Amino acid sequence: MRKKINIAVVGGYDCSKKYYKIAHALGQLIAQEGWVLVCGGRSGVMEAAAKGAKEKGGLTVGILPSFDGKDANLYIDVKIPTGLGYARNIFVVRAADIIVAVDGKYGTLSEIAFAFNEEKTVIGIDTWDIPGVIKVKTPKEVVAKIKKKLGIRK
Amino acid sequence: MRKKINIAVVGGYDCSKKYYKIAHALGQLIAQEGWVLVCGGRSGVMEAAAKGAKEKGGLTVGILPSFDGKDANLYIDVKIPTGLGYARNIFVVRAADIIVAVDGKYGTLSEIAFAFNEEKTVIGIDTWDIPGVIKVKTPKEVVAKIKKKLGIRK
Amino acid sequence: MRKKINIAVVGGYDCSKKYYKIAHALGQLIAQEGWVLVCGGRSGVMEAAAKGAKEKGGLTVGILPSFDGKDANLYIDVKIPTGLGYARNIFVVRAADIIVAVDGKYGTLSEIAFAFNEEKTVIGIDTWDIPGVIKVKTPKEVVAKIKKKLGIRK
Amino acid sequence: MRKKINIAVVGGYDCSKKYYKIAHALGQLIAQEGWVLVCGGRSGVMEAAAKGAKEKGGLTVGILPSFDGKDANLYIDVKIPTGLGYARNIFVVRAADIIVAVDGKYGTLSEIAFAFNEEKTVIGIDTWDIPGVIKVKTPKEVVAKIKKKLGIRK
Repeated sequence: MRKKINIAVVGGYDCSKKYYKIAHALGQLIAQEGWVLVCGGRSGVMEAAAKGAKEKGGLTVGILPSFDGKDANLYIDVKIPTGLGYARNIFVVRAADIIVAVDGKYGTLSEIAFAFNEEKTVIGIDTWDIPGVIKVKTPKEVVAKIKKKLGIRK
Repeated sequence: MRKKINIAVVGGYDCSKKYYKIAHALGQLIAQEGWVLVCGGRSGVMEAAAKGAKEKGGLTVGILPSFDGKDANLYIDVKIPTGLGYARNIFVVRAADIIVAVDGKYGTLSEIAFAFNEEKTVIGIDTWDIPGVIKVKTPKEVVAKIKKKLGIRK
Repeated sequence: MRKKINIAVVGGYDCSKKYYKIAHALGQLIAQEGWVLVCGGRSGVMEAAAKGAKEKGGLTVGILPSFDGKDANLYIDVKIPTGLGYARNIFVVRAADIIVAVDGKYGTLSEIAFAFNEEKTVIGIDTWDIPGVIKVKTPKEVVAKIKKKLGIRK
Repeated sequence: MRKKINIAVVGGYDCSKKYYKIAHALGQLIAQEGWVLVCGGRSGVMEAAAKGAKEKGGLTVGILPSFDGKDANLYIDVKIPTGLGYARNIFVVRAADIIVAVDGKYGTLSEIAFAFNEEKTVIGIDTWDIPGVIKVKTPKEVVAKIKKKLGIRK
């Protein structure tokens, strides 16, 4: 059985149309590659990515701040309520093979920092300017970087 | 979009053939109902349930003790590594709408106790004799109890 | 520098006068031995033990369910708010060299189970009848059992 | 009973002599104010601050990555092992009224980010240049800023 690859898309629960659109396209591409979309399960960038993934038949996982999962957006297949509040960010990172940050505020910063603590790769579109983040401009470039990192040819 | 129902199957990572067989049949039934199988992702009862679910085309989630997910059994679709050791039991419980305990030792006991802390339903087959556990004998009875609890008719 | 010994007293946040009195006496003895009292920081058995410990000049630590520590009883020196709800029980156990359970409901059961997961000693006064719990009747006997376990002579 | 104030000092487990000295002086001042020193319990900045606090009769709390507390430095009074690895950073932040960052790498960055998630104050000496960090140059200035924030006159 082939291990499924988990890609986390992280970013603010409140985002501009521009970043909603980018995250949405990214979610579509992730699903098209057969990767599982992992996210924090809420609105904004998380919702956009999950919506995109579902439109392309992907699987979406939301690791949620709440105890009961009622904070999940409509596009989450697998709800993992944690009751941890923002501390759930750590488990989003731990569940991901690679993390993609789109825009984002302090929550996203904590995810980037935590990813580097755990020696994971972070790809960023217009996110915090932290040493180590692989900066790209488009969802397509994100996918190319993920493939390179995972050693996938095509 | 209809909310997916998550059923956790909990029990020892080391179990007899008898309980492996029971958990396997239970996993099959869970998948046939269209429910997501949530478990601790390891061997024994967890593996048996996940194997059964996969045979029937179900979706399986493993909330793992390790940081890296290498402890997952072969039948886990979505790996959620936590790095928490046994403390991940809490998140198995939080991720579940209903918990089913099959046999089990102290890890299972912690899951039963924690489920009652969080006011969740626990159905048990030959597990700890703790007040509140709904005792049944077969996987079929488990499904009937789950349906009753969730208010599902047929 | 000599390592401080941490003793956790666990039990319900709601307890009868009988168990309040027992936990209070236990807290006093723990402080008199120079041990740190660790608890869940709330009312009932936790408060009684912390009150006793403070009366004898001991140090008290409360590992709290809340984010902000406002749920602490008046006798907690060091507040460790976790924001975890009942899941903080795990960290009470992890912070303790030895766990003492007095009476208690499902929260206490989760602590006993979790202690055995982590191969720690549990001493119990009128608590859950779980294999492995060292049953005693009085706070003095608790102290004698702790000393024996830790290899302390007098 | 007056609530004890918890001040977290965060920074790398590996630091230069310069920052060891600064953290040491800071620990001394924190103890002299009667505040509890909370830290990650390990070497570097954490050890320096704890050592300083102990020299002035303060109380020190270490919230540790390990399961067993063996990773604690020699100056920790109250060990809180978590078994969480770097994820314990969250609980350092939650246990603190105010966070002081000295130098530091990604672990420290995660603590700063997480502090802002939880709307806590961060005072920094030569640390990450993140919007919101109150930048100062000396331990004395740190104490002045803490007092101002807490509304303590002298």
